[in-house]
Amino acid sequence: MLTKDVEEMERVKPYGLYYWPGIQGRGEFIRLALEYAGVKYVDVARQKNKKAGQMFAAYLSSHSVANPPFAPPFLEVGDSIIGQTAAILLFLGDRHGLAPRNKMKRLWTHQIQLTIGDCVNEVHDTHHPISASLYYEDQKLHAKRRAKIFREERMPKFLSWFEQILQQNLPRDPRLVGRSITYADLSLFQLVEGLRYAFPRAMQNAPNSYPRLCALHQFVAQLPRIKAYCASDRRIPFNEDGIFRHYPELDG
Amino acid sequence: MLTKDVEEMERVKPYGLYYWPGIQGRGEFIRLALEYAGVKYVDVARQKNKKAGQMFAAYLSSHSVANPPFAPPFLEVGDSIIGQTAAILLFLGDRHGLAPRNKMKRLWTHQIQLTIGDCVNEVHDTHHPISASLYYEDQKLHAKRRAKIFREERMPKFLSWFEQILQQNLPRDPRLVGRSITYADLSLFQLVEGLRYAFPRAMQNAPNSYPRLCALHQFVAQLPRIKAYCASDRRIPFNEDGIFRHYPELDG
Repeated sequence: MLTKDVEEMERVKPYGLYYWPGIQGRGEFIRLALEYAGVKYVDVARQKNKKAGQMFAAYLSSHSVANPPFAPPFLEVGDSIIGQTAAILLFLGDRHGLAPRNKMKRLWTHQIQLTIGDCVNEVHDTHHPISASLYYEDQKLHAKRRAKIFREERMPKFLSWFEQILQQNLPRDPRLVGRSITYADLSLFQLVEGLRYAFPRAMQNAPNSYPRLCALHQFVAQLPRIKAYCASDRRIPFNEDGIFRHYPELDG
Repeated sequence: MLTKDVEEMERVKPYGLYYWPGIQGRGEFIRLALEYAGVKYVDVARQKNKKAGQMFAAYLSSHSVANPPFAPPFLEVGDSIIGQTAAILLFLGDRHGLAPRNKMKRLWTHQIQLTIGDCVNEVHDTHHPISASLYYEDQKLHAKRRAKIFREERMPKFLSWFEQILQQNLPRDPRLVGRSITYADLSLFQLVEGLRYAFPRAMQNAPNSYPRLCALHQFVAQLPRIKAYCASDRRIPFNEDGIFRHYPELDG
């Protein structure tokens, strides 16, 4: 499909975001980008009608959709479907000015996003180290072991890297790439939000250890559209069905 | 950096691939793309001189590199560094005709690559479900539990999806996107190679269950440049330090 066609279709119908209706999860990275860009979208599975839920199920099981997504979240753009969080953001970044125009800087932004995604995967595996299809209770002992290593080794490695690249980009303003907000800034805000919710003890000293990272979090939280969104009922509260779960026993 | 500048620098020095010297790992997805494209590159950490090893270490610990990679593999392109396997392939796909020109099809190719990457992560976690920093022996029991779920639930889910999209793309020729080979085809070849090495029992019935996937694997294996590469000593054999490890107890 040509870009022109996509633009034409978008005029006809708004983006459709497909994600599990009860959690922020990976869908939240897409929601934040759409909200910040001020783009019209329908959060399909959260619509209060049967048809929406059926459409969601149909996409996931369908063998007739062209380019079927492997898993949610996915975004309906005209007649096209885009899956994979980072790929959706790559698309939205280009379309809505949430990424630099320069090709190598766009790629760097994407690289940061993929690293945020890696960290999110590791957060998920702190409470589900054996399988997403088993209950937390059935893998709790493994979870404690994995969470300890995440808190003590992996989390500091990721957060130090974000701190370093923030420091290298601009000496004063907290931005990951260049001077403008990118989707990676919004995603990093969400990662910090989630880590603070899931691991309040381990994150207690973050303002001292990662001052620029915390400044970015604060800065994004105060952006008018993000502030309004987070105060609205479109923002699902964190809960223990999502990726960021607060289980005190996993927080050391 | 402008694309023109990147092209200018490439003329001066070949790509530098940085990855652990003893394993195929995630670096192999980059090697296959470079080999198929017939592009000059230096596999830096495998050069038999001290300086190369030092350069690798320096990148990983440096606080002065612009856009420092979080982890290997990363690719040196002129004065730029690109990290994250999927981002490197996105770059190489555009530069060397390993992805469609059409924007939405390029994004679809990338989406497939990200899904291959997700599967590779899950393969890694079958033998290291608790931490990459602990020995396999110290997480063997967890590994057995996780590997069983991978073999019985996750692997079939991934492989069925690849089979489906191969079937939907072309009725006869095994290609993921359009009629030409993309980097995703090369990566899927490597995934099948790795799964066959790690889980020979679980993969025994693959030719019946996933005929198109196996046809793609065979087709890529016979491409002259890939065939020559796999027969050369540039191809590191699979081993039990890499991502795809053959531990019979994890193969059911």
